[in-house]
Amino acid sequence: MNIHKFVMPEVIFGNGSIHQVGESCLRLGATNVFIVSDPGVMEAGWVDIVIQSCKQAGLKHTTFYDVTINPKDKEVEKGCEVYIQNECDSIIGVGGGSAIDAAKAIAILVTNGGRIHDYEGIDKIKNPLPPQVMVPTTAGSGSEVSQFSVIVDTVGQKKMTIISKSLIPDIAIIDPETLSTKSARLTASTGLDVLTHGIESYVSLAATPLTDVQAKNAISLVAEHLRPSVASQINREAKTNMAMASLQAGLAFSNAILGAVHAMSHAVGGKYPILHGDLNSILLPYVMEFNLLANPKKFADIALFLGIDIRGMSYMEAGKKAIEYVKNLAVDIGAPQRLSDIGLEKEEIQNMSLIALNDACMITNPRDITVEDIEEILRKEW
Amino acid sequence: MNIHKFVMPEVIFGNGSIHQVGESCLRLGATNVFIVSDPGVMEAGWVDIVIQSCKQAGLKHTTFYDVTINPKDKEVEKGCEVYIQNECDSIIGVGGGSAIDAAKAIAILVTNGGRIHDYEGIDKIKNPLPPQVMVPTTAGSGSEVSQFSVIVDTVGQKKMTIISKSLIPDIAIIDPETLSTKSARLTASTGLDVLTHGIESYVSLAATPLTDVQAKNAISLVAEHLRPSVASQINREAKTNMAMASLQAGLAFSNAILGAVHAMSHAVGGKYPILHGDLNSILLPYVMEFNLLANPKKFADIALFLGIDIRGMSYMEAGKKAIEYVKNLAVDIGAPQRLSDIGLEKEEIQNMSLIALNDACMITNPRDITVEDIEEILRKEW
Repeated sequence: MNIHKFVMPEVIFGNGSIHQVGESCLRLGATNVFIVSDPGVMEAGWVDIVIQSCKQAGLKHTTFYDVTINPKDKEVEKGCEVYIQNECDSIIGVGGGSAIDAAKAIAILVTNGGRIHDYEGIDKIKNPLPPQVMVPTTAGSGSEVSQFSVIVDTVGQKKMTIISKSLIPDIAIIDPETLSTKSARLTASTGLDVLTHGIESYVSLAATPLTDVQAKNAISLVAEHLRPSVASQINREAKTNMAMASLQAGLAFSNAILGAVHAMSHAVGGKYPILHGDLNSILLPYVMEFNLLANPKKFADIALFLGIDIRGMSYMEAGKKAIEYVKNLAVDIGAPQRLSDIGLEKEEIQNMSLIALNDACMITNPRDITVEDIEEILRKEW
Repeated sequence: MNIHKFVMPEVIFGNGSIHQVGESCLRLGATNVFIVSDPGVMEAGWVDIVIQSCKQAGLKHTTFYDVTINPKDKEVEKGCEVYIQNECDSIIGVGGGSAIDAAKAIAILVTNGGRIHDYEGIDKIKNPLPPQVMVPTTAGSGSEVSQFSVIVDTVGQKKMTIISKSLIPDIAIIDPETLSTKSARLTASTGLDVLTHGIESYVSLAATPLTDVQAKNAISLVAEHLRPSVASQINREAKTNMAMASLQAGLAFSNAILGAVHAMSHAVGGKYPILHGDLNSILLPYVMEFNLLANPKKFADIALFLGIDIRGMSYMEAGKKAIEYVKNLAVDIGAPQRLSDIGLEKEEIQNMSLIALNDACMITNPRDITVEDIEEILRKEW
């Protein structure tokens, strides 16, 4: 085993934990917080609770809602301006991966200057970031514990993956109650994102025993609780377990990185306003088929984690059962099935494949991959 | 599930990782480090490697070796003096739980003043501590990742348990190669300490899903790798897995706290110069017998983690098999079997029981316990 690192923020987990956000900022030395969210999360009432908690802790605050699905460079730059104008000294992100990734990117700019494009890639951030507290509301992105921020380059029409330990927030507050306002559609999409995080990090070239235990648990929790969570907005047990799955998958991929699914999904998501989870869920089984050869044993493990009885099967047979399971799960919860269904134009496939090949997530994909391989996978799923 | 927290340091794990200690201190802003260790670890050559790594990183250093098994209040006070005299600004602990606990306690005094006794209990530390990097060499204490420091009150002749998030080091560097200089005797004792951490945190009243996954893995790793690790100083696979077990058990108990074994072991260890792991291993099966009633399901899980085939058994039956396994493991690796063997005087039992009842670790023991219960357990094992 090589030398490896594992880093995570302080985690506060449980129903009602959102009320600890103000006190958590205070502990980090905040006096004037910048709250990044989006209009949907605001309407659901979660930002109001955050604001109230900040007020109770004696903190000033500024809110910023100009964040869209797959957050853009321009939104981040605007956020940075508003932060500086209001002399904020700390950041809270409240929402899905978009709000939290935007909050992290704003944190980079306010202490490091320049354009967000300057930080694309691994370890480009020089100065420490302001205190960051993240409150996820989707059980999906894992961004609240990860060293990733993914921002759309609106000119280049691609997603920039920024990876740095500085992007790990100081505190992640995970309150499963926030999941009760999520639609079944979004629950399905983000839940399949969690599964993708679990599976890609488990077979990643950078996986370690510490990431494996987290990935394993995340995969098992999704298999048991995603269907019930899509079926009911108020099933507390399902929400709590999906929140835990998202957290553990986040810890796994933050430290083991991801693979070809995310590389391809970043490429397509940079151009099309498609939910990240939808893209991942379509791509996942086909990339698993491609990657199976690279580590049959680990794919057989995945079948086991999914609850499949693999007794008497070879690793390859068990791995194929896992792929079948993932396809069926997506069907069961009504996730989109083909890239053409969600708007990808066929003539874009070549261009997308080139972009995917150069995404930072491709480095840890367990099987060597060429641009032709990527094209073939995209065509299969189109 | 209640709201719960999980906190851990950055972890660097792997053969050769000890050479990253200087650079790690540099990253934390250190310029002049205080290296706490003990004569045995120094002789084994690990401190020299740490010093060399610090020099390569351009850091000044001061060494301090006046730490004994079960570190004492006076040693900590002496260390604090030497740290201040030499104008150090950061701390490295290199060694077993004694060196690391002493390093943490010195860190408290240098920025908080007073006597170490002032900080006994939970959350008594006010000021931030200097940067702390810990390099364990025993695969036992888990102190390199925990929020605990246990120091002997030499006047009161008891161990003081200090618990605070500030005691979680900034970086833990876990190099399995350091285990190759450990005697079979010490490997057995510290390995049983790891098992105790895993089992006590798994059945703790403060256990959470995040601590359970760590405890589970730690228990399984000990069952598979402790015997081979005691059998051979150079079995790399066994050393690496025991280092991982120690880390995971440390993460579990730092966040889930412990129970009656540690409370009793702190009481006895405060008066007698006995290895902490020896005490724990004697006490563990008897406390398991006492606690079984509190959570038969979790004790049955432990049997499963230990590799026992529990099919067809009731939870109680499986739990009893786990207890039997623990007793046999201690016999296999030559650990002491009775408290009288390691020097406890019978007339001290009543006094020890009273001290144990008030130890901070007793709060999370899964079964209500009285001073009479503790006396009975100690008498059984005497």
